[in-house]
Amino acid sequence: MRVLILGGDGYLGWPTAMDLSARGHEVTVADNYLRRKMCLEEDVAPLYPTPTLPERVKLWQAISGHTIQAWIGDLGEWEFISTVMAASQPECIIHYAEQPSAPYSMLNRRTAMLTLQNNLTVTANVIFAVREFCPQAHIVKLGTMGEYGTPNIDIEEGWIEIDHKGRKERFLYPRAAGSLYHTTKIQDTDLLWFYVRTWKLRVTDLMQGPVYGVYTTESRQDRRLLPFFNYDELFGTVLNRFVVQAAAGYPLTVYGKGGQTRGYLNLLDTLQCVRLALETPASEGELRVMNQFTQTFSVRELAEHVRQAGRKLSLEVAVRSVPNPRMEAEEHYYNPVHTAFDTLGLKPHLLTDEVLVEMLTLALDHKDEIEQSRFMGKGARW
Amino acid sequence: MRVLILGGDGYLGWPTAMDLSARGHEVTVADNYLRRKMCLEEDVAPLYPTPTLPERVKLWQAISGHTIQAWIGDLGEWEFISTVMAASQPECIIHYAEQPSAPYSMLNRRTAMLTLQNNLTVTANVIFAVREFCPQAHIVKLGTMGEYGTPNIDIEEGWIEIDHKGRKERFLYPRAAGSLYHTTKIQDTDLLWFYVRTWKLRVTDLMQGPVYGVYTTESRQDRRLLPFFNYDELFGTVLNRFVVQAAAGYPLTVYGKGGQTRGYLNLLDTLQCVRLALETPASEGELRVMNQFTQTFSVRELAEHVRQAGRKLSLEVAVRSVPNPRMEAEEHYYNPVHTAFDTLGLKPHLLTDEVLVEMLTLALDHKDEIEQSRFMGKGARW
Repeated sequence: MRVLILGGDGYLGWPTAMDLSARGHEVTVADNYLRRKMCLEEDVAPLYPTPTLPERVKLWQAISGHTIQAWIGDLGEWEFISTVMAASQPECIIHYAEQPSAPYSMLNRRTAMLTLQNNLTVTANVIFAVREFCPQAHIVKLGTMGEYGTPNIDIEEGWIEIDHKGRKERFLYPRAAGSLYHTTKIQDTDLLWFYVRTWKLRVTDLMQGPVYGVYTTESRQDRRLLPFFNYDELFGTVLNRFVVQAAAGYPLTVYGKGGQTRGYLNLLDTLQCVRLALETPASEGELRVMNQFTQTFSVRELAEHVRQAGRKLSLEVAVRSVPNPRMEAEEHYYNPVHTAFDTLGLKPHLLTDEVLVEMLTLALDHKDEIEQSRFMGKGARW
Repeated sequence: MRVLILGGDGYLGWPTAMDLSARGHEVTVADNYLRRKMCLEEDVAPLYPTPTLPERVKLWQAISGHTIQAWIGDLGEWEFISTVMAASQPECIIHYAEQPSAPYSMLNRRTAMLTLQNNLTVTANVIFAVREFCPQAHIVKLGTMGEYGTPNIDIEEGWIEIDHKGRKERFLYPRAAGSLYHTTKIQDTDLLWFYVRTWKLRVTDLMQGPVYGVYTTESRQDRRLLPFFNYDELFGTVLNRFVVQAAAGYPLTVYGKGGQTRGYLNLLDTLQCVRLALETPASEGELRVMNQFTQTFSVRELAEHVRQAGRKLSLEVAVRSVPNPRMEAEEHYYNPVHTAFDTLGLKPHLLTDEVLVEMLTLALDHKDEIEQSRFMGKGARW
């Protein structure tokens, strides 16, 4: 299949590109290096450097024999996205091309406006370009479980049927997110849902939980193929950050009471889910929403898992509660449904000591390069 | 009270400015003439020309003795909005500054992107500027009843309590709009709701139905004070368009079956509602949603009203069904609640023959200037 991956240089984008390329798909990637630029500007370099996208593509070609087409540019610019779309004629578009950090979106006015404008403009351009160049293409869009927030009722899979005063209607499940970043994903959903109804697009919206892990089948062949591994407060997802803190002998920083519960998944399962979505596309005029995670944990439980795995490497891991920089409930009801991917045949990679030991080993190999000042944010300047 | 009206040159903005100024409020208006530019570019001039904003302000000063401060500029630019906000130090901000036409937002890629970027950027800037310059100010935001669409259950006033599997939660009422313009209003609501929770802003979100009418107490004193009166397919709301069609001896163009039912209100009641909202502000951390209309009509019923009023002026009014250019149900359930403004003391100005005769008379005075080609759109170019 001809697959176009937007944001193909990212933590998820690059592993997805290799995964699909290895399976014989014709892969094109596009990226404007926004993530790299933000990390540079905010002084939060990942654990180890990564080659540029053209270098990655060359390396991948040398190792696998597979070709990936790479385009560098801003998908918010019509000139660029229309060129990429016309050249690649995708049958499936995987849209990761968004500013992906909640705390970054809350830093200041500039980062808030960048998040809002980048995310909404790119999503709109994707919709308009699909309409113009490949109206039958399947859009696989990365949303987030964070769109739902933490309501006091069960979180269904995108939709809910409401009985009200003796009548019934099916609605998009009402969303209420905890950051501007997450709110832009809600706004993306609004936009996609409108154009799905209007233009009969085919869209799969993946409500993904926080991802952990770095290794995939492809990157195991050469460490230079590994994705970004951020461990800072802005771009490091919680479990990745804990692993690096443990390797550095720094206490795991749990926000407040640590009762914040979310649905997590291994990077390997992001790849598996995207592959499953791609192989069974949404129908014409369907907005298919799938909750993408495999296990729920509270932050306290995650910290405990890391402490336990650390023991196997003789690491003494401490856990420290720090004031919560986020606006979120620290104890709450959380019962999200996730059966859509099970139905498609997902075989989860669960969180085990083995997975954590492998991540800890990688972090220990880079122990000397860890900048402990990056563990705690400078806080929002608003 | 110090009141800042964003979009103060518009169909609602200018009458609101005079209304509040006449009642002793200290009024500042800001506008970038977007509406005038769009009408120029799309060749859909209103029924009669209107003076520029500085001219209107001078005229109003001469007639009423009241001063209105006017700023011309783009509220999407931080430099401009921060200057206006710092200079006017508003206690209440009335935010009308959006691209207001559903069909315009659906014309082509350029008008779609303009609508999305203008509406979202201005709303975000309003939020950020309030945070910086006047965090206690009350934001009165113009939303639209169109955010709700036409669900098969009763439309509540912004919120709905959902009973689900034995648990309860109160949510923003799920929204599903019929145009990109309406979708940007949903996205505005998402943004406001997020920052209300995060920064404890005071926000009133007015879910307004289509407005009809032109005369207000102030503009009765001098026709040069009248607001825009568009009668074209892009910017003319349905009843205003019907009135001009009737005056021109052109059949009233009903889209499809004409069963599309909406909640309407007289321009006088827009002013009254905004005044009521302003006098009883939302609390800190409250997103108060109010459904702003006084009567529901189907398009067929509106046409019948105009035909009937036309008889009093010896006008023969024909009604013609034309293919519906919009994506909307032509027959549907529609039962929206609207009690919030009744509770605040709204005294509705209902649709009467008298109101229509006055509008028809104004249209007849400009009969020779009516461009019949403007009644029907050129259609979306997508």
